[in-house]
Amino acid sequence: MSDTATVYNFSAGPAMLPQAVMRQAQKEFCNWHDTGLSVLDFSHRGADFTAIAEQAEKDLRDLLAIPEDYSVLFCPGGASLQFSAIAMNFLRGKALYLNSGVWGDKATQEAKNFGDVIAFDLLSKQDGKTAIRSQQDWPDCSDDYDYIHFTPNETIGGVEFADLPKAGQGRWIADMSSCILSQPINVKDYALIYAGAQKNIGPAGLTIVIVRNDWLQREPVAPVPSLLSYAVMAQNQSMYNTPPTYAWYLAGLVFQWIKAEGGVAQMARRAEQRSQALYQFIDNNDFYRNPIAKKNRSRMNIPFILKDESLNSLFLQQAEAAGLRYLKGHRSVGGMRASLYNAMPMQGVEALIDFMSAFAAQNR
Amino acid sequence: MSDTATVYNFSAGPAMLPQAVMRQAQKEFCNWHDTGLSVLDFSHRGADFTAIAEQAEKDLRDLLAIPEDYSVLFCPGGASLQFSAIAMNFLRGKALYLNSGVWGDKATQEAKNFGDVIAFDLLSKQDGKTAIRSQQDWPDCSDDYDYIHFTPNETIGGVEFADLPKAGQGRWIADMSSCILSQPINVKDYALIYAGAQKNIGPAGLTIVIVRNDWLQREPVAPVPSLLSYAVMAQNQSMYNTPPTYAWYLAGLVFQWIKAEGGVAQMARRAEQRSQALYQFIDNNDFYRNPIAKKNRSRMNIPFILKDESLNSLFLQQAEAAGLRYLKGHRSVGGMRASLYNAMPMQGVEALIDFMSAFAAQNR
Repeated sequence: MSDTATVYNFSAGPAMLPQAVMRQAQKEFCNWHDTGLSVLDFSHRGADFTAIAEQAEKDLRDLLAIPEDYSVLFCPGGASLQFSAIAMNFLRGKALYLNSGVWGDKATQEAKNFGDVIAFDLLSKQDGKTAIRSQQDWPDCSDDYDYIHFTPNETIGGVEFADLPKAGQGRWIADMSSCILSQPINVKDYALIYAGAQKNIGPAGLTIVIVRNDWLQREPVAPVPSLLSYAVMAQNQSMYNTPPTYAWYLAGLVFQWIKAEGGVAQMARRAEQRSQALYQFIDNNDFYRNPIAKKNRSRMNIPFILKDESLNSLFLQQAEAAGLRYLKGHRSVGGMRASLYNAMPMQGVEALIDFMSAFAAQNR
Repeated sequence: MSDTATVYNFSAGPAMLPQAVMRQAQKEFCNWHDTGLSVLDFSHRGADFTAIAEQAEKDLRDLLAIPEDYSVLFCPGGASLQFSAIAMNFLRGKALYLNSGVWGDKATQEAKNFGDVIAFDLLSKQDGKTAIRSQQDWPDCSDDYDYIHFTPNETIGGVEFADLPKAGQGRWIADMSSCILSQPINVKDYALIYAGAQKNIGPAGLTIVIVRNDWLQREPVAPVPSLLSYAVMAQNQSMYNTPPTYAWYLAGLVFQWIKAEGGVAQMARRAEQRSQALYQFIDNNDFYRNPIAKKNRSRMNIPFILKDESLNSLFLQQAEAAGLRYLKGHRSVGGMRASLYNAMPMQGVEALIDFMSAFAAQNR
């Protein structure tokens, strides 16, 4: 985002924030609402910050229709810290991890330090494309797992799926880091939802946790660091110690922006529009290729591979020069990746498509 | 800090940042160094952020003369998360906690979840004032403790001390949250130093850890969450996952500001000047009282009690109206507290003294 040239940031995260949010935050950076103080300066226990914090929670509850019997926590750090917290709080017998990529695998590895984990790879190849296996091939979700963890959108692989077996309902734990607030969800299906802020919420260093209150009563099998205890965090309204106040404030501005723009239903329409435009272009141009089966393509993270991979550096160099930033794919996948989160305007996607079209024409 | 009226923030943390840092951060908020992107948008693995991150570490190393065989980590969350991390990483047999207030007690409580802790209360009453006990009354620091933890400056009580027994050298672990960068230190005395950012470093949500590398080889007795493992954090240059990038950047700006102002020796002179002015005023005015023995008075956090405590609300109300913010003392101590961190200009202290003087004259 820029005041001068138009630059679009396709980073998988930290990602761009909405331009309107950035302008407001810049304007009130040194003097919030004529207090003469910056939000950065506010005591987290003072009236000014308390109002900001409560409004942010209220707006998030509105946006996702979070029921009363769920707590909303603003936790320090990223989602990876929650990988440990989830297992330390809730893993007593065994847990099922349904994995569809790198982040599910990482969550599994972390959980294995703290108990018995059954990991199942949801990915298969269908007609040369990566796809989520049919549910009849999944493990039986009615088994007595403490919880069932999955990653509805895999940021690195660009794999997304939504359908879940009835059997696990109420025991799902979902890492929604890269898809939260991009569509309506039914919170009641989940025991816990978590999401690192740096994609659709705000700056890095904050993770939102939505947890059903009855789960806060579960006794962990071993001591849990207070800051990783959901019970402690909930009892203290996420202020057991000083929370990441500025990140919390920016998240609140983003929630207000989403509400003003029309809510998560509107975010879903835009995500559909952005991603379909790019997938359609890729599918109709044999210079590029997306490796994911259509039904499981991510609306947020779109990996694509150049037919001639020796052109990768040239592509990236010219894209950067054209103001299309951070398109390099993750090292584990290669190629390119365009992340199209809520803050990405349609013009950014159009600029990318124009560039890709011209690059293909020039380098065939 | 304000563009318009002069407001001084005496909060114990989050605290005010230097005005020059705030102005620079505001100016480049949406467009850092003509990149067309905000630092908030930067991928933590991109060249722009890597340069920011490395410079911040280099500047901190310069400021505190951190030897080569120590790692500098930029950890998510606050110091309370390190209370757990320290015990989980290093507590195998027993550890000694030398406590001088609320934060040392909290560190002790957290550590007790993970192993054997000997806690010793350093505080005593001397002539009606709170003081640190003479070292001859301390436990023998040459005992085979895994480490010896202490809090050189207690933010809530306003107690500070610096002298340590030779016997514990190299095994000290210090929570320097509220005094780091306020004076030169000899890093070699310590196995680990940690400090939450929101006082002398930057915004809440970041904690600096300085740890001697040989301690990274110590095998924990039980699994440690990856984000709390100093070995994992060091191996990954604090980027095992997405770090709190914006907080890291602001910390870097503060480090540059301290260097430009003359380094930690200059910060120490200013801290002395600020705190001596306020203590002198308090000692010479029987309307106010500081409960700490002179030798252990904090240069950073100055609690003071009104002779007539029924005037507390009036004092706070008039102080706020005069732009002197967040002077209310911690609930466990009562009265008032003025926190005078590095970013507090001498004019702020003078304004406070003028106000206190007038208030005393009017309310005798």
